[in-house]
Amino acid sequence: MSQPRSVDADVVIVGAGLSGMIAARTVLAAGLVPVVLEADDRVGGRILTEDVMPGVSVELGAQWIGDTHARMFRLADELGVETFPQYDEGETSYDLGGSGVLRENEFHTRFADELAELERVLRRLDELAADVPVEAPWLAPRADEWDVISAGTWYDNQGLSPVARTLLEICTVGILAVPTVEVSFLHLLFTIQTCGVTAELFAESEGGAQTTRFVGGTSEIPRRLAALITDHIVLDSPVQTIEHSTDGVVVHCRGGLVARGRRVIVAISPTLAGRILYDPPLSGIRDQLTQRLPNGSAMKAFFVYDEPFWRADGFNGQLISDVGPARMSNDTCIPGDDHGVILLFLEGDQARTFGRLPVDERRAALTAELVRHYGAKAATPEFYVDGEWSDRQWTRGCYNANHGPHVWTTYGEALAAPIGVIHWASTDTATHWSAYMEGAVEAGERAALAVVDSLP
Amino acid sequence: MSQPRSVDADVVIVGAGLSGMIAARTVLAAGLVPVVLEADDRVGGRILTEDVMPGVSVELGAQWIGDTHARMFRLADELGVETFPQYDEGETSYDLGGSGVLRENEFHTRFADELAELERVLRRLDELAADVPVEAPWLAPRADEWDVISAGTWYDNQGLSPVARTLLEICTVGILAVPTVEVSFLHLLFTIQTCGVTAELFAESEGGAQTTRFVGGTSEIPRRLAALITDHIVLDSPVQTIEHSTDGVVVHCRGGLVARGRRVIVAISPTLAGRILYDPPLSGIRDQLTQRLPNGSAMKAFFVYDEPFWRADGFNGQLISDVGPARMSNDTCIPGDDHGVILLFLEGDQARTFGRLPVDERRAALTAELVRHYGAKAATPEFYVDGEWSDRQWTRGCYNANHGPHVWTTYGEALAAPIGVIHWASTDTATHWSAYMEGAVEAGERAALAVVDSLP
Repeated sequence: MSQPRSVDADVVIVGAGLSGMIAARTVLAAGLVPVVLEADDRVGGRILTEDVMPGVSVELGAQWIGDTHARMFRLADELGVETFPQYDEGETSYDLGGSGVLRENEFHTRFADELAELERVLRRLDELAADVPVEAPWLAPRADEWDVISAGTWYDNQGLSPVARTLLEICTVGILAVPTVEVSFLHLLFTIQTCGVTAELFAESEGGAQTTRFVGGTSEIPRRLAALITDHIVLDSPVQTIEHSTDGVVVHCRGGLVARGRRVIVAISPTLAGRILYDPPLSGIRDQLTQRLPNGSAMKAFFVYDEPFWRADGFNGQLISDVGPARMSNDTCIPGDDHGVILLFLEGDQARTFGRLPVDERRAALTAELVRHYGAKAATPEFYVDGEWSDRQWTRGCYNANHGPHVWTTYGEALAAPIGVIHWASTDTATHWSAYMEGAVEAGERAALAVVDSLP
Repeated sequence: MSQPRSVDADVVIVGAGLSGMIAARTVLAAGLVPVVLEADDRVGGRILTEDVMPGVSVELGAQWIGDTHARMFRLADELGVETFPQYDEGETSYDLGGSGVLRENEFHTRFADELAELERVLRRLDELAADVPVEAPWLAPRADEWDVISAGTWYDNQGLSPVARTLLEICTVGILAVPTVEVSFLHLLFTIQTCGVTAELFAESEGGAQTTRFVGGTSEIPRRLAALITDHIVLDSPVQTIEHSTDGVVVHCRGGLVARGRRVIVAISPTLAGRILYDPPLSGIRDQLTQRLPNGSAMKAFFVYDEPFWRADGFNGQLISDVGPARMSNDTCIPGDDHGVILLFLEGDQARTFGRLPVDERRAALTAELVRHYGAKAATPEFYVDGEWSDRQWTRGCYNANHGPHVWTTYGEALAAPIGVIHWASTDTATHWSAYMEGAVEAGERAALAVVDSLP
C-alpha cells in the first residue's frame, strides 16, 4: 500500500464512472474544485472497451445509445467522438418453444398469434407505465398494488401462451439482467416510463435504445472526459470511510489517501455506496434501501471471425433463443474492418450459471448455439473473449440496481435525496433512461448542480 | 481515533454477538487462540437488555427461547443463568377485520370459520416444509417452483377470507419482520422447517419458540460468555478490510488496529459481511448473495406501569390487531417486581412507518392502541422506551436476513461455504432455528469446529 497522502477540494466525488466524471466536469465549470476518487486502476466504470486485435475492439460494458439520448449525443459531440449506426440488415434467427431454428419470416408466420399476444401485453405495459411519475414512482395511483407483486407474477397472470411468455421474459431480462421474478412490477413500469415506451426499450432499431455506437469504442467517452479533468482524478483509491458534518467531509481511502471537501457526491451503484462506512451513520431507511438494491447479472461474450459470414446469408446477427446459454445476440462488427464480430448476451440466470463454468466450457456451449443458427463457419472463430461483471470488485454486477417487490414504495424516497453534505449520483438514481449512460449523465449533472447550489 | 495497534491470534473472529463469542469459546477449548473484533462498544449484537428502573429491565433485542432450543438451555446452564416461563394466563385481545376489540373467546366464536381456514393453511405449510432440506433448501424437489413466488403471492392464492389472510400475515411478519411479499415462498418453508413446524414457530406456549426468558435479562448470556473470554475481545474495532491467502489473514479495523491470524470467522449478518473489503476479492456469486440478503425491520416498544392491571382483567397481555401501529404484544413483567411491563411489536411496514416518526408521535399511537384493548389505565405508564434496529450502525435491521424470490436457488450454496481461510457464522447461516439465538450458537460452533479441523 502506498503512503498516506491528502488532497483538498471543494467537492469530493466517489467513482470515476461516467456519472462521477460528468459531476466533476460540472463542478469545475462552476468554478469549484473537484477531486474524483476511483477504486479501480482505470476510469469508465461500467464502460469498458477492449482492443482484441488490430482494428477490432469489443464492448464488455455499455455499448449503445438510442435516438432519444440527447445528453449522450451532445456529450459525444463536445468530446469529438463520432458515432455510427448499429448494423440492422437482414433477418433475426429464432429458436423458441421447441420450434428449432427458424428465420425471422418463418418465425413470424408460425407464431403470428403469439407475437400478437406479446404486442397486446406491451401495449398494456405502456398504458400502465404512463401513470408512473419517474421522479417518485411510489406516488403512482396504483403504486401499492403494483409494488407487491413481481413483474414475473404479473406476466404469469396475463394468460399468455408459453412462447409469448418466453419472448416477454427474454425481452425483459435483456433490459433488467435479472429474472422477472426478482423485480417489482412497479419497478418494471418505472423502467419503461423512464425510457419512454416499451417499443423504445425493447427495439434495436428505429428509435430504440440501441441504434448507435461510438467510433473508437465507448471508452472514448470516459477517456476523453478524463483528459479534461485529469488533474482531478485519483485512481487506485477505494473509499472506505466518509466522515461528514455540516462543515464538510473527510474521505478515507484504502491505502491511506485522505480527501477533504465541503461536499461529497457518491457516484457508484447503491449497493456499493452502502458498503462505505459513514460517520455519523446514515438513517436506517437509507441503509436498508442499499441492502435492497442488488445489481443485475450480465455477461457479454464476443466471437471474432475473419468475416461476418451471417450477413451474406441474410442474417442481421441477432438471435432470440430459449435453448442455449445465450438468449440474444448482436452483430458488433467495426466499420472499416473486415472481421465479423458477434456478441452473445448472458443475462440473469444464464450469466449466473454459465458465468461459474470454466471459460472453455462456456465458450463451447456458446459456439454450439452459434453453429445451430449460422452454420459451421461459426465453429472457427479467430478470437473469443467474455466479461463477467459480478466478479469485478468495483462494479459487482450489471446493468444496474434492481428494485424487488416493496422497495420503491417503502424506501424509494431515500434513493437520491441528499443527506446533509452527501449527494448521490450514478445512473441508478436517474429519472430519464435510468440504467443507461444517458441516465448516468443526468444523475451526475443533477447531483453536481445541487452541490453547486448548496455552496455559498 | 486510537493509535494503530496489532494483535496476533490463531483465529480472528469478526463480531462479538452470540455466534462470534461461541465460536471464540469453541476455538479456545480446542487449545487455539482467538481474537474477537467487535465494531460496537459492547458485546451481544442483537441481544440487548436495558435496565429502565430499579428491578425492571426490558429486552430491546432477543428475548425468548423455546423448548427445543437445547443448545441455549445448555449454554444458560453452563453460564449459571436461570430461566423463567413466559407469563401465559388469561385471554388474548383481538381487533381484526373491523371487528372492534374482542376478547379471545368472543373472537374464537365469531371467527371460527376463519380460524379453521388458518389452521388448514398452517397444516399445508407444515406438509410442504417437510420436503425442504435445511442444509440445502435449493435441493427441495419443488425448490424451483417455490422460489419464484413470494410467500405473499402463495398466501394470496389460497382462497382465504380477508380475516384469515390478515391473521396469516400477522403471524408470518411476526417471524420474518418483513411483509410476506418480500420473501420467497421457499424461504418461508425453510424457516418453518428449520424450526420444526408452524405450531412451534407461531405459538407462544406449549412447545413454541417463546416459552422461556432469562433471569436478569438475556444480556446475562453474552455478558457471562464475554467474561470467560474477556482477554480475547476487542471492542470499538469495526473491521473494514480482510486480506487473506492460504497462509492466513490480516484484518484491518477502523482506527488502525491490525489483527493477524491463520483463519477468520465472519460472525455478522450477511449484508454486513458484504460490506467488508476482501483482498483478493470474493467471487461474484458470494458478493451478489450478500447484495440480496437484507435484514428485516423490527422495533420493540415497552410501557412500564405500576402494576400489570390487564392480568386482573383476565388478559394475558397479548393483542393481535390490524388496526394500530402494533400488530402484537406481550406481557413482559419481571418476576419478583410489582411493575406491569407490556411489549408492543412493530415489524415490517409498521417498523418502517412508525420508526420514522418522532418518538412522541409513535408513543401516542401505541398508547391509543393499548387503551383500546386494556382500558384507561394504559394511558398513564410510568415509563416508555423503544428501540429500532435498522438505525443501529452495527446491526442494521432485525431479526435476520431474508431471502427474496430466487435467492436460495441461485445463490444459496454461497451462504455458509468457507472461502479459503474465511469461514462464516451468525444465526443467518444456521440450519436449526436459523434467525434465533439457538441458530447463532449452532453457527458459531459449526464454523469454529470447521476452523479447528482445518488447522494442522
